[in-house]
Amino acid sequence: MKDKRDDLASQIEELVSFANKLADTSRMQILKAMNKGFRISVKTDKSFVTEVDVNTESLLRKVISDRYPDHSIVGEEFSNATINSPFVWYLDPIDGTEEFVNGIPTFGTIIGLHYFGLPVVGIIDHPALNIRSIGAYSRGTYCNNSQIKLDNIDIKSSIRLGISKRTNFLRQGNEGILFDKITSSFPNIRIFDTCFAYTCAANGSLDAMLDYNVRSWDIAASQILIEEAGGKFLTIKKSAEEPSLAIVSVVFGKNEIVKQISESLTEN
Amino acid sequence: MKDKRDDLASQIEELVSFANKLADTSRMQILKAMNKGFRISVKTDKSFVTEVDVNTESLLRKVISDRYPDHSIVGEEFSNATINSPFVWYLDPIDGTEEFVNGIPTFGTIIGLHYFGLPVVGIIDHPALNIRSIGAYSRGTYCNNSQIKLDNIDIKSSIRLGISKRTNFLRQGNEGILFDKITSSFPNIRIFDTCFAYTCAANGSLDAMLDYNVRSWDIAASQILIEEAGGKFLTIKKSAEEPSLAIVSVVFGKNEIVKQISESLTEN
Repeated sequence: MKDKRDDLASQIEELVSFANKLADTSRMQILKAMNKGFRISVKTDKSFVTEVDVNTESLLRKVISDRYPDHSIVGEEFSNATINSPFVWYLDPIDGTEEFVNGIPTFGTIIGLHYFGLPVVGIIDHPALNIRSIGAYSRGTYCNNSQIKLDNIDIKSSIRLGISKRTNFLRQGNEGILFDKITSSFPNIRIFDTCFAYTCAANGSLDAMLDYNVRSWDIAASQILIEEAGGKFLTIKKSAEEPSLAIVSVVFGKNEIVKQISESLTEN
Repeated sequence: MKDKRDDLASQIEELVSFANKLADTSRMQILKAMNKGFRISVKTDKSFVTEVDVNTESLLRKVISDRYPDHSIVGEEFSNATINSPFVWYLDPIDGTEEFVNGIPTFGTIIGLHYFGLPVVGIIDHPALNIRSIGAYSRGTYCNNSQIKLDNIDIKSSIRLGISKRTNFLRQGNEGILFDKITSSFPNIRIFDTCFAYTCAANGSLDAMLDYNVRSWDIAASQILIEEAGGKFLTIKKSAEEPSLAIVSVVFGKNEIVKQISESLTEN
């Protein structure tokens, strides 16, 4: 079967370059705010939001609408219009706002472009760490300009698994027992609680990441980053089809490890 | 009762400056190695060691012996002579070698000076993050030159606890159930698996850190960093009195949180 994304061959370079420009814009806003300080508030779900999250997403939305008025946009900080374009931009200007507010540099900007539901471009940018990963359909995955091939990276120690904090496993009923089971089976565990874990899975620094009960904008860049690096991206569950509403759980990283974790999740 | 460390009043400035010089030396070695590459091997306990760990500790030992020939030294990478001085330098040139080898920037150098068993100077330096914390007896704790007062930092969200990876809880018999219990009681958990968690506890970015079954050089800087910032450092258990042999478990950070975690550890 034909992959719809092949229709984009002539546009993809331009889309990648535009996505990079969005990441540059976001990074500039964030670094500026880190220098001069920013207001923090608490959202109704008790998570943090800063004026930087809101202003940056607002700016990115404007830049996209100016250039591609027909494209749809789904982002964390604004209510999302119905998707009425095959092109959808996913935006999370600061993934890990709790870390940003607490001075931990692992937060980052997530930008994903999907086409008919298939990921085309994915960027995760860490302004405070000066690390950017970018993956694009049929063009490979790069971290700070080095191409990543997950199959070429040896697994040098016991499996290094990133996982969501236990809080995530309590969001849709109490699934804490799954956190306990996975951390028992894979005790060499890391919890960063930001997209830095996705970056680490995408460049092979972690063998895989199990991300539990998150939103579409959180993982909008991960699939293309992983697949273009030769790894595996697996959806475990999804609460709805509508991307702006769905709560999703995914595991991704090196093929063999994703298989092991997926088996461990389903066995009794 | 008199604190023996008060005897050092006239020397402390010199000792702090010397400890900073050691951290500079370590950072230079590490950054140089990151640029030109390095050899990796696996130790008998299956943990990683690189030529950078060994060469840096060797260099730091020489610098200390040249300046303070009477001081004792306890470090991770060499067999440790009997302690025969009231002054003991603890050295861990790369804490988090597994992360260092895998390209995760949270590793760091730990340097601690103790006097008659009491911590006098503690430094944790993160070359790849450009973050250095330093604490010294009666002189306060500073992170990149900003003084830290843990009591002045609000707890803005659910308790943010750093914890050792589950692997650590399996080192002295199977205490995995304790990991499960703590992560259940404090689900907003982070696992960095390097001294970056100590840095975060010392500067208030995490509310506390529960470090389980580690060695004396791992935590040699944490007590003075925390106490001079106005926080609490509590030893939970210790396998031996001899610092070069002991396996220790500690919890440290903001006073109220350390109290809560310590209570949670002891209740049935």
